[in-house]
Amino acid sequence: MRTLIKGGTIVNADAITRADVLIDGEEIALIGLDLDVPADQVIDATGKWVIPGGIDGHTHMELPFGGTFAKDTFETGTRAAAFGGTTTIIDFAVQPRGGTFHQGLDAWHEKADGKACIDYGFHMIVSDMRDELLPEMDRLVEEGITDFKLFTAYPGVFLSDDAAIFKALRQTTKNGGLILMHAENGPVIDAVAADLVANGMTDPIGHGLARYPVFEGEATNRVIRLAKAAGAPVYFVHMSAADAVNELRRARDEGLPIYGETCPQYLFLSLEDLGNGFDGAKFVCSPPLRDIKGGHQEELWKALVSDDLQLIGTDHCPFDFHGQKEMGRGDFRKIPNGLPGVEERVDLMHDGGVVTGKLSPSRWVELVSTAPARMFGLPRKGSVAVGLDADVVVYDPNRRHVLSAQTHHMAVDYSCYEGRPVQGGADVVISRGKVIVDHGTWLGSAGHGKFLRREPRGFAEATRTKLAQPAPAVVG
Amino acid sequence: MRTLIKGGTIVNADAITRADVLIDGEEIALIGLDLDVPADQVIDATGKWVIPGGIDGHTHMELPFGGTFAKDTFETGTRAAAFGGTTTIIDFAVQPRGGTFHQGLDAWHEKADGKACIDYGFHMIVSDMRDELLPEMDRLVEEGITDFKLFTAYPGVFLSDDAAIFKALRQTTKNGGLILMHAENGPVIDAVAADLVANGMTDPIGHGLARYPVFEGEATNRVIRLAKAAGAPVYFVHMSAADAVNELRRARDEGLPIYGETCPQYLFLSLEDLGNGFDGAKFVCSPPLRDIKGGHQEELWKALVSDDLQLIGTDHCPFDFHGQKEMGRGDFRKIPNGLPGVEERVDLMHDGGVVTGKLSPSRWVELVSTAPARMFGLPRKGSVAVGLDADVVVYDPNRRHVLSAQTHHMAVDYSCYEGRPVQGGADVVISRGKVIVDHGTWLGSAGHGKFLRREPRGFAEATRTKLAQPAPAVVG
Amino acid sequence: MRTLIKGGTIVNADAITRADVLIDGEEIALIGLDLDVPADQVIDATGKWVIPGGIDGHTHMELPFGGTFAKDTFETGTRAAAFGGTTTIIDFAVQPRGGTFHQGLDAWHEKADGKACIDYGFHMIVSDMRDELLPEMDRLVEEGITDFKLFTAYPGVFLSDDAAIFKALRQTTKNGGLILMHAENGPVIDAVAADLVANGMTDPIGHGLARYPVFEGEATNRVIRLAKAAGAPVYFVHMSAADAVNELRRARDEGLPIYGETCPQYLFLSLEDLGNGFDGAKFVCSPPLRDIKGGHQEELWKALVSDDLQLIGTDHCPFDFHGQKEMGRGDFRKIPNGLPGVEERVDLMHDGGVVTGKLSPSRWVELVSTAPARMFGLPRKGSVAVGLDADVVVYDPNRRHVLSAQTHHMAVDYSCYEGRPVQGGADVVISRGKVIVDHGTWLGSAGHGKFLRREPRGFAEATRTKLAQPAPAVVG
Amino acid sequence: MRTLIKGGTIVNADAITRADVLIDGEEIALIGLDLDVPADQVIDATGKWVIPGGIDGHTHMELPFGGTFAKDTFETGTRAAAFGGTTTIIDFAVQPRGGTFHQGLDAWHEKADGKACIDYGFHMIVSDMRDELLPEMDRLVEEGITDFKLFTAYPGVFLSDDAAIFKALRQTTKNGGLILMHAENGPVIDAVAADLVANGMTDPIGHGLARYPVFEGEATNRVIRLAKAAGAPVYFVHMSAADAVNELRRARDEGLPIYGETCPQYLFLSLEDLGNGFDGAKFVCSPPLRDIKGGHQEELWKALVSDDLQLIGTDHCPFDFHGQKEMGRGDFRKIPNGLPGVEERVDLMHDGGVVTGKLSPSRWVELVSTAPARMFGLPRKGSVAVGLDADVVVYDPNRRHVLSAQTHHMAVDYSCYEGRPVQGGADVVISRGKVIVDHGTWLGSAGHGKFLRREPRGFAEATRTKLAQPAPAVVG
Repeated sequence: MRTLIKGGTIVNADAITRADVLIDGEEIALIGLDLDVPADQVIDATGKWVIPGGIDGHTHMELPFGGTFAKDTFETGTRAAAFGGTTTIIDFAVQPRGGTFHQGLDAWHEKADGKACIDYGFHMIVSDMRDELLPEMDRLVEEGITDFKLFTAYPGVFLSDDAAIFKALRQTTKNGGLILMHAENGPVIDAVAADLVANGMTDPIGHGLARYPVFEGEATNRVIRLAKAAGAPVYFVHMSAADAVNELRRARDEGLPIYGETCPQYLFLSLEDLGNGFDGAKFVCSPPLRDIKGGHQEELWKALVSDDLQLIGTDHCPFDFHGQKEMGRGDFRKIPNGLPGVEERVDLMHDGGVVTGKLSPSRWVELVSTAPARMFGLPRKGSVAVGLDADVVVYDPNRRHVLSAQTHHMAVDYSCYEGRPVQGGADVVISRGKVIVDHGTWLGSAGHGKFLRREPRGFAEATRTKLAQPAPAVVG
Repeated sequence: MRTLIKGGTIVNADAITRADVLIDGEEIALIGLDLDVPADQVIDATGKWVIPGGIDGHTHMELPFGGTFAKDTFETGTRAAAFGGTTTIIDFAVQPRGGTFHQGLDAWHEKADGKACIDYGFHMIVSDMRDELLPEMDRLVEEGITDFKLFTAYPGVFLSDDAAIFKALRQTTKNGGLILMHAENGPVIDAVAADLVANGMTDPIGHGLARYPVFEGEATNRVIRLAKAAGAPVYFVHMSAADAVNELRRARDEGLPIYGETCPQYLFLSLEDLGNGFDGAKFVCSPPLRDIKGGHQEELWKALVSDDLQLIGTDHCPFDFHGQKEMGRGDFRKIPNGLPGVEERVDLMHDGGVVTGKLSPSRWVELVSTAPARMFGLPRKGSVAVGLDADVVVYDPNRRHVLSAQTHHMAVDYSCYEGRPVQGGADVVISRGKVIVDHGTWLGSAGHGKFLRREPRGFAEATRTKLAQPAPAVVG
Repeated sequence: MRTLIKGGTIVNADAITRADVLIDGEEIALIGLDLDVPADQVIDATGKWVIPGGIDGHTHMELPFGGTFAKDTFETGTRAAAFGGTTTIIDFAVQPRGGTFHQGLDAWHEKADGKACIDYGFHMIVSDMRDELLPEMDRLVEEGITDFKLFTAYPGVFLSDDAAIFKALRQTTKNGGLILMHAENGPVIDAVAADLVANGMTDPIGHGLARYPVFEGEATNRVIRLAKAAGAPVYFVHMSAADAVNELRRARDEGLPIYGETCPQYLFLSLEDLGNGFDGAKFVCSPPLRDIKGGHQEELWKALVSDDLQLIGTDHCPFDFHGQKEMGRGDFRKIPNGLPGVEERVDLMHDGGVVTGKLSPSRWVELVSTAPARMFGLPRKGSVAVGLDADVVVYDPNRRHVLSAQTHHMAVDYSCYEGRPVQGGADVVISRGKVIVDHGTWLGSAGHGKFLRREPRGFAEATRTKLAQPAPAVVG
Repeated sequence: MRTLIKGGTIVNADAITRADVLIDGEEIALIGLDLDVPADQVIDATGKWVIPGGIDGHTHMELPFGGTFAKDTFETGTRAAAFGGTTTIIDFAVQPRGGTFHQGLDAWHEKADGKACIDYGFHMIVSDMRDELLPEMDRLVEEGITDFKLFTAYPGVFLSDDAAIFKALRQTTKNGGLILMHAENGPVIDAVAADLVANGMTDPIGHGLARYPVFEGEATNRVIRLAKAAGAPVYFVHMSAADAVNELRRARDEGLPIYGETCPQYLFLSLEDLGNGFDGAKFVCSPPLRDIKGGHQEELWKALVSDDLQLIGTDHCPFDFHGQKEMGRGDFRKIPNGLPGVEERVDLMHDGGVVTGKLSPSRWVELVSTAPARMFGLPRKGSVAVGLDADVVVYDPNRRHVLSAQTHHMAVDYSCYEGRPVQGGADVVISRGKVIVDHGTWLGSAGHGKFLRREPRGFAEATRTKLAQPAPAVVG
């Protein structure tokens, strides 16, 4: 099966060129000027951009949370991702508390196998960092599960204490893995939240009020310092607060290998969205959306431009408003945490980033595809280049459409961006050589997506340096 | 009883003047030029300095630790303090785990009552910060126990979790108390220490190697951020690491009401002292002495000059080398933590500060007397001024002597400064009008010292500002 | 002549006490409880504070500027100062361009001699820093003129180039003098101002718009770095912008001996005052009043509390609105720069600092009297202490009055604070033993004030450390 | 003419792939797997890397300096560049003082036209920033001379005063140009240098001793702040000192569009090289090589990794030791400033960056080719991509050779790296489709190189954002 993309402009992270692309089987086989070669199908990309397929390094399909499950399955979620121009996700398998990592991994393989419409990898959520599991971390890295997410939040569910975090960090200096952190001071947040509820503040806005920005800043610095002591790199997921970004900058100015991601919701939504009575439940996620007056969005954008934040994920974790979010009526602490977003990421970043002039087209591609490919050890993804997997999107930078639950493909009954017009959309989406979306028509299939064994130390390539060696920290 | 001090130079924190001082009863009654008034005794202070008696805000008499007790009783310890020019101590009463604050307070009153040779107050060590004790904090403040020491170190003994620290901080915004913090990340330190021991490193130097400077820096920032969220001030005891001082500076540059103390051992001793086999046990305290090459001493001195550190305490907590420190042979974790020092503070700061030109005489007086008086709510102490308590020292800035366990008065079998010559010494020490030390002769008596009910919010006066109001932190 | 002040509360920088004060001749002779000694006059200070007389280290009496002269003479200006509780000023003698320092000094001695009502010293304004004048700097220091003010502003009038500033700084490392800096980037300001005028913006607000805060921040850092290279201390006069305060903090955090002053106008007035048509000319001074939205006032207050700013001067330099300020109608660049203020400083800092709770009474005394005495080498001033000059003010912290040109004693036809009520006022003002103001009645006389030979290296005492040694800067 | 490169690994800034490259005429025409197409010549790149040709954005061919000229002509210099794997240079045309920009440009066109062996562009050195030249800046931008270099050093030769710098910066906000800055405080350096010479220090080491790192830091911050006030971006050439890098970081953390370059000499040489008597003259350049103990190299490397420094130039400006450098015997100020380096840049960065593990291969390519292409507006350069100019190098990452004046191709009688072994070398160098170096054999020709009209606002693409808008700076 050979597909020829003609007339488009290839937008890669390093250069923008006019050239045609021939896909042969699952790979990009040939790039040339005015290619005149036989092909099974020809896609006219005149006036369009040809970009590497989006990579969303942060999704939660079917995540159990608070007695319910995130609505999107690997089938519905990856299908929605594809409609939005994303051709790879990395989802979070969850270790059961008291269990092993592989128990969680097996469960996630079962969820995904035969269901995913696009390629996928797994990170491992550490629910319970027991010393005897440290050697199992090494085995996971060998099996291509190269990252481990730990939490300073969610006491009793996911929270790891500082000693456990330190030991996990230290283990990655031996096995080449990477610790991903959800950094908020959960125990203190819970104390503030309990007070709010005790004082009658039970609406969704309470979720945002309880989780001070400074609690994210504190936890971010804490983990940075533990990582420095361990001689390990760290990657902060879903950074939302200026307080945290400032700690990230400080660490990177010191030359520490510290990386960060943010998500569209922190760039385009704010605390105010949580304030319309219980309707605000639609916007409950952690960390919370931040007060627009706090300057958080501005700092996130600055950091995306300066490369202090390296990439964009979604933290896609959708719960229906009806029946799921409603579990928290009368107590915001019972609202399932999470937002839908896997479908909208590429377009939102184009509309709010490229169209507004904040990002160049190449930087946009870097943030949504190239950087995640590097950071997470996927050398066959992230560029329109000969020899790589043919994950390619023909993107129309001028097409305007409106985001809405009426039209989106995520299995959730609302959109965080209901009615928002955006400029830019994926016209044709190709996953390993197969056209799976063609101008709004679904041509993909469950099971097409394959599990990706990832390379360790991708972050080192991503960030252009080898792992910092742990200096004898006592001197510092 | 009237005592006339003639011919001396009064060195106060704000000015240096030549004048005579008349003490009548327990107060300073008159200061004048060439005073010619009747007196029961006349002290010739020609060529000497007349300074307010030293105030050591950080002592641990008879502290139980690791199955033994600090050697100095209130009698021996305050007597030694007096020989060193200190006329007030504030000691730490310890709440028993599971018990109330008053149980600890009662025990300490019993230890001190009728024993102390100089005036004394109490801070309260919080071993177990249960929610139901919060109202008891208010009562202690009313009773003149205005400070509460919490720990991020010593898991299972003193460690409070972050939520408990946050609640205690918040309580002080209501009752005017002050939280004192021992800031080191204890759980992580214990993990590192366990590894060292497992790898055969059991000597005292292991104590210093396990407690990285960055672990003090991290905990310092953590508590600063919790205090910011609570709208409360915080005072850091025994700061030792550049990492921590830098966090203190950052917070103060933001305008936060954050204060700090250091101790002579961090200015004059270093990690190297821990390194001579088991003899290093003499120097085991927490935080540990720091690597001389890490620049920690230099940063502490800078901060003393710029007033980022406001005062000097000792953390006096002496254990005999023989019989007590020796409990840790074969495992440095079992060495009782603590050093003697209450007797040497004033002289060391004179010799190492004033004589070297790092500190002016007035700044020296401020660090060892005036600032502790303000910070800890003792308006009748800290200055040679009419109407204040007659806690006065006739100090010879030129007298040279040698520090040694052979000659010191602390009830401990070694000196950290054995053989060190110092310039400057207290010739005559007067406590509330009574001469208790006269050129090396002890004239004092157990029970002369009285319990001091302290004023809350002393720190506000100390730092020249009212308490910062807690801004709606979610916006920040 | 003996004067007894009875019943008052002595507020010094280091302590607050109830005691009586006996003045004998020009000195404070005796302080005691309920003094019952013979005296020529007795002042009842019941319910009042007894404070050291204010010291204004920054005045410009009869300064020539833009073809006119500041209105206050040494007689009118020092009389007004006294009414406001200030008993010492340090004025700026001006070197004539092309001339010597002593030519300027002689001229200023002539202005002041026999005219001043209170004691006075001189700083030297360097208009023209020629290499051959460097040895003359040494002689001035010996003669008690220990400070030299240089400018990065006012090209063609006062501006020194960077090499000249560096050489002057280096000279003070040898002679113990102190460089005072007016730090704004004058050449760039002039370019912006010329553009504004060319674009029709000629009103007084243009003065404020042309002088960006960043231009003060830049020049402040520039001089800090030259001082670091020279191994010299620096004192920044009239700091107004957050940008500059941040540079000051950064330098002090590095341990550099950098000091700063601000003035009441930067704490209580703002750019908005410049905006009412030509009436804004009343508020034209340099640096300009700053935009209230820029957070400058908040940063100045923070720095006053943390001691990053050490003291308060006025930059008193009054020009009548009618006839003098009016010279700049049609071109704001021709408005004489300067505001009246010598009379209002002590009360404004009490009302806006102590009454609001931003400053403790002791910190207020430190800022307006004790710190200037130390910084500028006046060991006989700055404290109510036996043996010092009897510069004493009986201050009523509760008396309310209204600031107004109708009632002030400065020789200028407007007040910057017209109609502003303030709490606190000097009831009795004593200069070297002589009552010169008694409840609003003038009892002083021209010629009572004496020239003060000042001690070099006062700043070292002020800031509690000896001069930093110039490290081999090439390594840094 | 068709050239096929077979078997190599394409190393681009965004991805590394195995593919063959067909060059047709002057462009890259086709990239494919195992290309089997007719070609005039086939290059076997098995085991080699195929990289975009190096771009050196900072050279000075035939620069007049101190009465002599840099030795390399456009012919010898570009030939040497090519041997080192560089296929584009951007040289600095010099405005004659008192003259126009075009007078300088015309002179440089004359030097280069028909001589250059590889493509070249011009920056414009501003010797004399007169107001009437501002409109000529706009015209140069339109003509593809998009950058203007100004100096805070070299008084009387190149130094611009702050007002001129500010005006030039402001002009670029209108015309899309970019100001390049040589940031050292020249007047103060000259004062220090004069003192050194007066004190008998005339050897080349004096050059390094006079130019303190803090003088580079100061000037860097000064220009950053002027740029902030003007709302303009700035690019700092040849950053050498930690002090300057720290200012760069601070500005970038604030979100300002500030960019920086360093050069191999600051990464691999140090002040110590200046110290061997007059032989040190070989290493005289400005800014000078820095003290190895000052940590400057470490900070430069950190900044290269974190992208605070975006690219590597050489400041190639060679003078013979014999006859030219010798002009400064007896007075280091007369030594012509400049080092040879255009030939060694790519290899040094590979050997010292990639081989040591400090840089990934992709980051290396970005620093030496992709980033300069973007920053300086050369969209047809900087990537091995179809449709771009066929500036391609077949690079052997394993070949070891030794740097030496015996073997280099620069027209200068010494090498700064004499005897240094390096790993990595350009085997085949192709300029716009023509093989000009083939395994050490020169196949190129003078005149092959063409003048490049560059695009303005390349920096915006380089740094992924549009120009920051000048906020109303008075508020900040």
